[in-house]
Amino acid sequence: MTPMGAAVGTASAINCRVKPCHRALAVSLRLRTNTDSPSYAAAQSRRFSPGLSSGVEPLRVASRSYSSRTAMTEGLLFRQLLELESKTYTYLLADTATKEAVLIDPVLETIDRDLKLIGELGLNLKVAVNTHCHADHITSTGLMKKRLVGLKSAISKYSGASADILLSEGDKIPFGKHCLTVRDTPGHTDGCMTLVMEDQSMAFTGDTLLIRGCGRTDFQQGCAKRLYHSVHQKIFTLPDQCLIYPAHDYLGQTVSTVGEERKFNPRLTKSIEQFVDIMNNLNLPKPAKIDISVPANLVCGLHEV
Amino acid sequence: MTPMGAAVGTASAINCRVKPCHRALAVSLRLRTNTDSPSYAAAQSRRFSPGLSSGVEPLRVASRSYSSRTAMTEGLLFRQLLELESKTYTYLLADTATKEAVLIDPVLETIDRDLKLIGELGLNLKVAVNTHCHADHITSTGLMKKRLVGLKSAISKYSGASADILLSEGDKIPFGKHCLTVRDTPGHTDGCMTLVMEDQSMAFTGDTLLIRGCGRTDFQQGCAKRLYHSVHQKIFTLPDQCLIYPAHDYLGQTVSTVGEERKFNPRLTKSIEQFVDIMNNLNLPKPAKIDISVPANLVCGLHEV
Repeated sequence: MTPMGAAVGTASAINCRVKPCHRALAVSLRLRTNTDSPSYAAAQSRRFSPGLSSGVEPLRVASRSYSSRTAMTEGLLFRQLLELESKTYTYLLADTATKEAVLIDPVLETIDRDLKLIGELGLNLKVAVNTHCHADHITSTGLMKKRLVGLKSAISKYSGASADILLSEGDKIPFGKHCLTVRDTPGHTDGCMTLVMEDQSMAFTGDTLLIRGCGRTDFQQGCAKRLYHSVHQKIFTLPDQCLIYPAHDYLGQTVSTVGEERKFNPRLTKSIEQFVDIMNNLNLPKPAKIDISVPANLVCGLHEV
Repeated sequence: MTPMGAAVGTASAINCRVKPCHRALAVSLRLRTNTDSPSYAAAQSRRFSPGLSSGVEPLRVASRSYSSRTAMTEGLLFRQLLELESKTYTYLLADTATKEAVLIDPVLETIDRDLKLIGELGLNLKVAVNTHCHADHITSTGLMKKRLVGLKSAISKYSGASADILLSEGDKIPFGKHCLTVRDTPGHTDGCMTLVMEDQSMAFTGDTLLIRGCGRTDFQQGCAKRLYHSVHQKIFTLPDQCLIYPAHDYLGQTVSTVGEERKFNPRLTKSIEQFVDIMNNLNLPKPAKIDISVPANLVCGLHEV
């Protein structure tokens, strides 16, 4: 039962080999501050007997926001993979017709598992992208590039890290007939991105928004106010039924929805002032691997590109 | 990197409060012994550079058997949840219209997480079912029945365990417009079941079939030949694209398909003689919790029903 929260990268700029994606029109986003702050833990569901302390007011059927039918997109292959030590989720997405694939947040320790699966499925991995410069594990993108001909690494241009493709708001990562679109969601780090499927059925939120939690904001570029605005402007404006796939979960949860997080996230349903106060008083320990992870991840992992 | 394999229950019969489900016609099943045994580790994918040792001959696009679009069934809510110590997957399924829900293989340690989610989603949990009498963790069905009014526990009638509903081949577990159908798949234990969605889009295989593995068969009622026949007769006869959701995974994998396991399972692609030889020489340690788990799970966990 590790506290919800994750780690942060550095801002120091290193040699950047930039091959920018084509840029799309920035999505028009609406700032909507959630101020209704439901009494999360106190509300009781009538469904449960009095012995149950964790009952809360349930989502209404009409909203359908609790529906979680994973990866409904036609012609999409989707796999969620967990690295068990750092509790990092890696996501594999591919076009079932062209076999072009994208890998999100791959971890060095699980590179053999991931490459074996990619090989078995007959996929052509085009891009390995990190949602940010991780501090709790080392990415496998550098080593993976040495093993897969033609693979490109990608990360936010605001991360300070080097990669083949440096991304920012509106950039697209195409694979076959599908694509992921970048939304800049800084706050946990300067270079945090959320990657959104073209039909807005799924969002890969990195450490910006976790299931009933969010990434920590207490060191390096961390800024609680920026994270709050990123979530409310760039994630909570997605459809209620959009599936949320985070970079981590420490309780064994695999997925949430925008509707659920808008209603039940214990931090982000608060006012911005309350949120900043919560984030400033988490008193979390320093990530165990930060001193090796961040320098390594600035160059695609231990195997520098 | 724990070896793939799981634990087993006992066969001793205990007082059974039987409230049988209505019985459907047994599915006509075809015995098909897979004898093509591909050279799993040796085959190389042309896609990869020579440095990659784990490349294998990929699945063909035409078969579509590698497609993994989770829970495509209309009007179905689906959640996969992990208990991190025993690496047990718990599955929550619900009808999005009626809110009737079923929980598969819930674990005592995560009862609060599971009840909180069920409450938040506004679900009416009707049945908590175990795919078998687990030896590596204690079920939460007994305690959950004390907290949720009207909840019924369920398990195979061949498990030797007590529950409100004792199931066998062809029995259905309805929830709203959906239902799970029981296929008896003994071999890991006498009372192992696979639960199949009505559209055969998903199968919950318990410890009978794991991702690229299977449950161990080396103690109590374990029988390698029975497990082999169960998988080939009752699981590999499902459509290639049917998603396989096991009770455990020790490598962070979350899902597979029938097509993938038929092609890539390193044990079950072998002949029955080779399979029995593999299973008889695993030399796995005794599950740490077997001495408390099995007696507890014979009565729905520590909180006897």
